[in-house]
Amino acid sequence: MYPDHLVKEFNDYLKEVMADYGAVPGILKDAMFYCMQDGGKRIRPIFCMLTAISLNKNFKVVLPTACAIEFIHTYSLIHDDLPAIDDDDLRRGRPSCHKAFGEDMAILTGDALFAESFNLIAQRQNAPAEIKVAVIKEIASASGAMGMVAGQFVDVYYSGKKLSKDKLYYMHQNKTGKLIKASIRCGAMICGAKERQLEGLSRFAEKIGLVFQITDDILDVTSDSKKLGKTAGKDSLQDKNTFPKVWGLEQSRQIAGKNIEEAIASLQGLDLNTRPLQEIANFLLVRKV
Amino acid sequence: MYPDHLVKEFNDYLKEVMADYGAVPGILKDAMFYCMQDGGKRIRPIFCMLTAISLNKNFKVVLPTACAIEFIHTYSLIHDDLPAIDDDDLRRGRPSCHKAFGEDMAILTGDALFAESFNLIAQRQNAPAEIKVAVIKEIASASGAMGMVAGQFVDVYYSGKKLSKDKLYYMHQNKTGKLIKASIRCGAMICGAKERQLEGLSRFAEKIGLVFQITDDILDVTSDSKKLGKTAGKDSLQDKNTFPKVWGLEQSRQIAGKNIEEAIASLQGLDLNTRPLQEIANFLLVRKV
Repeated sequence: MYPDHLVKEFNDYLKEVMADYGAVPGILKDAMFYCMQDGGKRIRPIFCMLTAISLNKNFKVVLPTACAIEFIHTYSLIHDDLPAIDDDDLRRGRPSCHKAFGEDMAILTGDALFAESFNLIAQRQNAPAEIKVAVIKEIASASGAMGMVAGQFVDVYYSGKKLSKDKLYYMHQNKTGKLIKASIRCGAMICGAKERQLEGLSRFAEKIGLVFQITDDILDVTSDSKKLGKTAGKDSLQDKNTFPKVWGLEQSRQIAGKNIEEAIASLQGLDLNTRPLQEIANFLLVRKV
Repeated sequence: MYPDHLVKEFNDYLKEVMADYGAVPGILKDAMFYCMQDGGKRIRPIFCMLTAISLNKNFKVVLPTACAIEFIHTYSLIHDDLPAIDDDDLRRGRPSCHKAFGEDMAILTGDALFAESFNLIAQRQNAPAEIKVAVIKEIASASGAMGMVAGQFVDVYYSGKKLSKDKLYYMHQNKTGKLIKASIRCGAMICGAKERQLEGLSRFAEKIGLVFQITDDILDVTSDSKKLGKTAGKDSLQDKNTFPKVWGLEQSRQIAGKNIEEAIASLQGLDLNTRPLQEIANFLLVRKV
């Protein structure tokens, strides 16, 4: 069961944040608002908020960082959808940013959201300065040249070329895994997790990050564009390296199941309220969007 | 006279930083190294380093932040040069990033450098955590939706349309001015400038940022591509709004001269070693590249 009440809380907070961008000029503002409006699963913010809850803290404490991470995720989708990269016209059930506002605006809108993500943490996150620096370091690493961009590079560069299983894992770990891991780790750092808790949550995060990407790959094969809100079947059309392609559909499902079990196991014995994270982990296996 | 010895010091430090990116995959790494290699004026790092010197500190103290700002400047050039934006084939005397590595790689290389700029400050800058957060906030604001990207938006959106003098000022202030101001302010914050010094340096920075852009516009008219290392005459070709276009060449020069005088005046009586900043300010008026 997906925690829709937290999605609502997040979207309400996001509206408050977006109100700060009233002075952004013209259609740059329109494009930022268009891309950030309701519609996504907000799964990274949800992971961050659930981590706070698992540490018996109010999820509101981590909202600025959760929001910063959603800015980064959104910027990455905007740039990935560009004609020079994945060339995708549909996103969250609407025309993608460059279809709605033009390629130049899509590049700039992504750039703006990325910059503002760090601004958000620096300005709005309530935490000791040391923790804020640690959070920024975590997020910058996760989204940088040896993180998300590296994964995206491998994805683009090896489209149409055969990818080894190791490289497939590297690609997913970087493209999706590290930002999901950062969502959980940053939530934990802000909420004062002890070293052992942080380690356990990091292991949990790595495994569910992988499962998230496996199920994403599977849905691209088994679902349709209307349900997904983005173009289904694109991976195979663009000859992308995916889990179903490299491992087959059935074995991909098995790998996902095994990783969820291990993810849940890594939360045990850490004095955590594990139920919310367990629920979302199990949800990943059965998600339809 | 341009402080070439500081450029050398900066480039040496940059090499050290780039060595950290050995594990970046394939041509993403090549593109990052290609774009960051020697060749630019490094004027933003120089401003940052000279600010340290003006506060009687060793310029080495601010090198990580100076480097982060050069990463951001370089990322912005890479994205600006893209076919969907300024469509420029020449940069720092070499093919621009997308000409050398393709559009997809240019988008990703810019994204990677931007992320790593924040990483650099978080990881390498030696300063109290409060100062690091303040520096990150300054730089994220300067490069974000109400900073550099806003200026770039106005530049793109109003190409071929008439721009009022106010809007021209807004464009330059955001597109170039704020990151130059951040170079100086961050240098000052890291070196423990007093509030009055920071204010004086900020006024200085605003004025020389404006002059830098005016002389950039003038050189686009009066110089050639070989000297500039980028395509000259492009502003007029793309019907860009520039100082010479809006004010005429002669009056643009006068505005530049007046602003340099005011810039230098704003450094007085602040117990600063003003000479290095004065020299670079005067250099801006006579620069040929």
